[in-house]
Amino acid sequence: MGKGKISEKDKDLEKDQLLERADEREMQVHTDLALEARESCGEGQEGISGVKIEESVHAASGVKVTWVEVLDTQGEEAIGKPRGSYITLEAEQMAVHDEDGHREIAKALAEYVRKLLSGLGSPGSVLVVGLGNQEVTSDSLGPQVLNHLRITRHLDLEGEGQKVQISGIVPGVMAQTGMETAEILRGIVAETKPDALLVIDALAARSVSRLGTTIQLSNTGISPGSGVGNHRHSLTEESLGIPVIAIGVPTVVAAAAIVYDTVDALAELLEAAGSGNAAEAVDGMSLPERYQMVRELIEPRLGPMYVTPGNIDERVKLLSDIISEGLNMVFA
Amino acid sequence: MGKGKISEKDKDLEKDQLLERADEREMQVHTDLALEARESCGEGQEGISGVKIEESVHAASGVKVTWVEVLDTQGEEAIGKPRGSYITLEAEQMAVHDEDGHREIAKALAEYVRKLLSGLGSPGSVLVVGLGNQEVTSDSLGPQVLNHLRITRHLDLEGEGQKVQISGIVPGVMAQTGMETAEILRGIVAETKPDALLVIDALAARSVSRLGTTIQLSNTGISPGSGVGNHRHSLTEESLGIPVIAIGVPTVVAAAAIVYDTVDALAELLEAAGSGNAAEAVDGMSLPERYQMVRELIEPRLGPMYVTPGNIDERVKLLSDIISEGLNMVFA
Amino acid sequence: MGKGKISEKDKDLEKDQLLERADEREMQVHTDLALEARESCGEGQEGISGVKIEESVHAASGVKVTWVEVLDTQGEEAIGKPRGSYITLEAEQMAVHDEDGHREIAKALAEYVRKLLSGLGSPGSVLVVGLGNQEVTSDSLGPQVLNHLRITRHLDLEGEGQKVQISGIVPGVMAQTGMETAEILRGIVAETKPDALLVIDALAARSVSRLGTTIQLSNTGISPGSGVGNHRHSLTEESLGIPVIAIGVPTVVAAAAIVYDTVDALAELLEAAGSGNAAEAVDGMSLPERYQMVRELIEPRLGPMYVTPGNIDERVKLLSDIISEGLNMVFA
Amino acid sequence: MGKGKISEKDKDLEKDQLLERADEREMQVHTDLALEARESCGEGQEGISGVKIEESVHAASGVKVTWVEVLDTQGEEAIGKPRGSYITLEAEQMAVHDEDGHREIAKALAEYVRKLLSGLGSPGSVLVVGLGNQEVTSDSLGPQVLNHLRITRHLDLEGEGQKVQISGIVPGVMAQTGMETAEILRGIVAETKPDALLVIDALAARSVSRLGTTIQLSNTGISPGSGVGNHRHSLTEESLGIPVIAIGVPTVVAAAAIVYDTVDALAELLEAAGSGNAAEAVDGMSLPERYQMVRELIEPRLGPMYVTPGNIDERVKLLSDIISEGLNMVFA
Repeated sequence: MGKGKISEKDKDLEKDQLLERADEREMQVHTDLALEARESCGEGQEGISGVKIEESVHAASGVKVTWVEVLDTQGEEAIGKPRGSYITLEAEQMAVHDEDGHREIAKALAEYVRKLLSGLGSPGSVLVVGLGNQEVTSDSLGPQVLNHLRITRHLDLEGEGQKVQISGIVPGVMAQTGMETAEILRGIVAETKPDALLVIDALAARSVSRLGTTIQLSNTGISPGSGVGNHRHSLTEESLGIPVIAIGVPTVVAAAAIVYDTVDALAELLEAAGSGNAAEAVDGMSLPERYQMVRELIEPRLGPMYVTPGNIDERVKLLSDIISEGLNMVFA
Repeated sequence: MGKGKISEKDKDLEKDQLLERADEREMQVHTDLALEARESCGEGQEGISGVKIEESVHAASGVKVTWVEVLDTQGEEAIGKPRGSYITLEAEQMAVHDEDGHREIAKALAEYVRKLLSGLGSPGSVLVVGLGNQEVTSDSLGPQVLNHLRITRHLDLEGEGQKVQISGIVPGVMAQTGMETAEILRGIVAETKPDALLVIDALAARSVSRLGTTIQLSNTGISPGSGVGNHRHSLTEESLGIPVIAIGVPTVVAAAAIVYDTVDALAELLEAAGSGNAAEAVDGMSLPERYQMVRELIEPRLGPMYVTPGNIDERVKLLSDIISEGLNMVFA
Repeated sequence: MGKGKISEKDKDLEKDQLLERADEREMQVHTDLALEARESCGEGQEGISGVKIEESVHAASGVKVTWVEVLDTQGEEAIGKPRGSYITLEAEQMAVHDEDGHREIAKALAEYVRKLLSGLGSPGSVLVVGLGNQEVTSDSLGPQVLNHLRITRHLDLEGEGQKVQISGIVPGVMAQTGMETAEILRGIVAETKPDALLVIDALAARSVSRLGTTIQLSNTGISPGSGVGNHRHSLTEESLGIPVIAIGVPTVVAAAAIVYDTVDALAELLEAAGSGNAAEAVDGMSLPERYQMVRELIEPRLGPMYVTPGNIDERVKLLSDIISEGLNMVFA
Repeated sequence: MGKGKISEKDKDLEKDQLLERADEREMQVHTDLALEARESCGEGQEGISGVKIEESVHAASGVKVTWVEVLDTQGEEAIGKPRGSYITLEAEQMAVHDEDGHREIAKALAEYVRKLLSGLGSPGSVLVVGLGNQEVTSDSLGPQVLNHLRITRHLDLEGEGQKVQISGIVPGVMAQTGMETAEILRGIVAETKPDALLVIDALAARSVSRLGTTIQLSNTGISPGSGVGNHRHSLTEESLGIPVIAIGVPTVVAAAAIVYDTVDALAELLEAAGSGNAAEAVDGMSLPERYQMVRELIEPRLGPMYVTPGNIDERVKLLSDIISEGLNMVFA
């Protein structure tokens, strides 16, 4: 490549490389998705030790399914998530109106929820929890799913076959209740004794492209610091005494992630340009130090800020319809 | 009075008598208001045995205050409500826009809530419960109050003086949760250990004139079968282990009450007209039997039906603003 | 029948007669349903002059369909509704959860909406109006339908075939806007020039048994004084300049109707018992005068009161889902 | 300064300079605030030609008031906003619970609304418009204000003195209606003939520090492309035929702004470090070209994305309460 104007083709190549590397680095900001965690931990040819990954396409719905199984401590460390199963369903059409398509996605979801439930010995009673703040659109997915869920625990189910008893609760967030969600749920679980918990939550992703197009299932519960509302205590079998299945949908990206992406992309580009100087101390500060400084400058103002699409109301409505339809299939 | 057309004056006299007697009979349909229960139990000159009643007018707000104290078993039987204090605040202007007037009513409310709380030894932490179904306007008073209540339990209150720690919950109704409200609250109380419960609920009155113009406070909790949503289990100190203060506002009248009022008014009128025939058996059925038959005919269709004003949304908004403002005064 | 206790069988017979006659008399209180208007105008063997009625059952859905065609002035007077088509769809299962059943009902609805639209020359653009107050559950049907309706006017429809351009508006009620709905719609129609209006509204029925189990379609628009919110101005082709199709669902009964039903049932019963005395002047007032007096006593307090089922939120949700699904079928 | 570690003090100095320059550059991304537009157009000692600015502090409330008067074409070009008055009220305490403090802010707001109205000859009837999407928390400010506004046009105001007739509308957004807000309002204005329009809207700011702490008043209406929902048509006296006062509150920042801030901060820093190389062509691309490339890379994914605080529900509730209280003071 000569000096002067670079060719468009070269520019495109460089763009692709930048994007790839940006993907690799995404993990520097928290993500609730095991999928993104895996992508960023530098998987080699032989895979990540302690993590088993299977990818497939669900035929009827066209949903891309990634099953991440974290097997042991090594896997936990590599991926930053506790041992267990993480199933991610991805499909662009989750974000657009398509009633028939969504019914097929709901069926795919139902299939995987059934798998996780049968792994728990097919519980006879499930408490479904709609986490999040129904007053904040991006955090209202859980409450919206509960709105459309068929609740059956209080009905006389005798003679109606092998149905699962479903109860449901929307516990609210700490600013509304003054209580930890974990406290509220521990109390209700102790009193009503369901066999399992199924929590629905809005998640923070690392990449804006996942917002409203991804559903993650797991059998590991909810860890502290996850979710849009940043739960401080965990909701897990360890803390609640019964197994916890979680269904999450990324609806926001932390605003700080944009800063990281931008700094990383620029750093990449400048290093590529004058690689020799990259780590070189200029005027008393190395480039990495300078990147770090920019982050420190801009990030604090963005700490409690979230990035969300303008049409978040439609995306949350579509996704919550898919999930409630899928769950009603499982429990009907 | 000669035969033929009766004079207008006589007609008015008769109307007044009818209305009085209708008031006396109101208790045949359930009411959540101790005030209405008292009115209908035939209080004589010397009062009701086992019940102490004090009426006063709150000077600044003009609110009419009736303090009904049920003292013993005799009082409980007479009035159909458990032993304890029932304070009713009445004011027509609760139902109209009047920000300054409502602030005075909120202060009156705060004063009586403080009295009931000091009777409990001034609890240091209170769990406030917004009972009812926020999807049904007439039943959404409790949830709406919680929306505007200052929640403080999760804040670090050190150094901020003698404040009461407030937590809050909107437990939903059984059709939404599959659980008894009592189960949910028992669990949360066991886990978070507040000193007292304060429940806000929409009530069923006997008379449409009370809708949106009355607030009832009591220190006896909520009894089975009360409230718009008809709680099946009680929320009382006995069932929950901590004292329960209830704030209720009548927002509906059972539709069956209209049938009773109408039958009673007609019966009254016909008996007055031909007193001799009143209890007389005609064609094999006495008049009382016939009244009963009409009730039996019409009431079942109305069983789960409620009467509510067309502008119920405004009334519930105004009342919930008064109550949350009053409670914020108490706990600030 | 001898004196003394009447037999149970006789009692049942008498009950049936009472109910029948109560049905005949229902029209004394306003109803928005042409079906109820017809039932109460004393149809003989040969039918009502000026009114053509066809009853059928929609095979796939089991919906009972009554097509009332008001043909001329005579029909208008008999039935108290303007000339045009009134199609009533009735099915008990509208009020219960049954997703597949509801899809069939939505298809039936779509079929009849298409018939009415084709009677208007198949308009190419339709403004759908969600009448009513979304803050009052029983009056929120229209706004809820709009929430789930696919709006397409703003999309580029080129190349997508013969679709109808759909716009939508939730105009609110006069207490919220200070404006007549007719004023708002006249302005929007003048500016955006749709070919037809389709208004969705919650209606007042005469009988509680119809609440949430009936859908009425008509091509005559909305008359003054109809609907839960009592529109003062009409929404008709005459007032708006374009044809108006109305879809209505009864969600309330005027509380006064309960008084009428009760008085009528009692009057019936007492007349039957001692027919000779029925119209006899007793103590200066005839029995009919006395019934009228009771109505006058009780009705004014109930004027702005409505009777509605306790689970009105579920019924409105189910019905609005059926209607939006049906309309999306028509316009997709 | 020697090579190696720079001192903390130097680092702080450098930070300050960076922040200042970042402020100067903020205008590269759209802002709805005249205040921010002014800040970024390089005001010198002598001010901006064609723009008059007055700053003051409202005594009772402590609100910082900036009155920007755009006087002529020169001013319009400098600031990128049409000729007219822009009054900005700023106070950190808008974002925290403080009922008494908020009443003072509402009074300050009322004072300036009255000034703008008297500049229009004190209109006798005003249509208040709650712009935005009530389903999206950050965009629901306008609809929330309308919820608490006293509407009076439909009441008989005779004998009640010199009150202004208030009507109100929540027109929805184009995805919900299929219509331009301008079309809807033009129609309603033509039909109901108010003397002036007062529109309430959620705005996009350039800086996250303004979110929920700033109110902007103007008498120039709403320009195309402004607001959270990006109105495509303007709402101005020119387009609607009556004067338009706008009250706006910034609730979001475009996500792209974060990218710009970050790139600019980094560019600044790197230029400072090795000023000679700043514009130097490295490997066929100058640094500015490279910055531009990063923007082009990251921005498209963020186009329709917004940054908003986690507690946006509380901020919008507080601000809408202040505004409705202020407007009720003006019009009572």
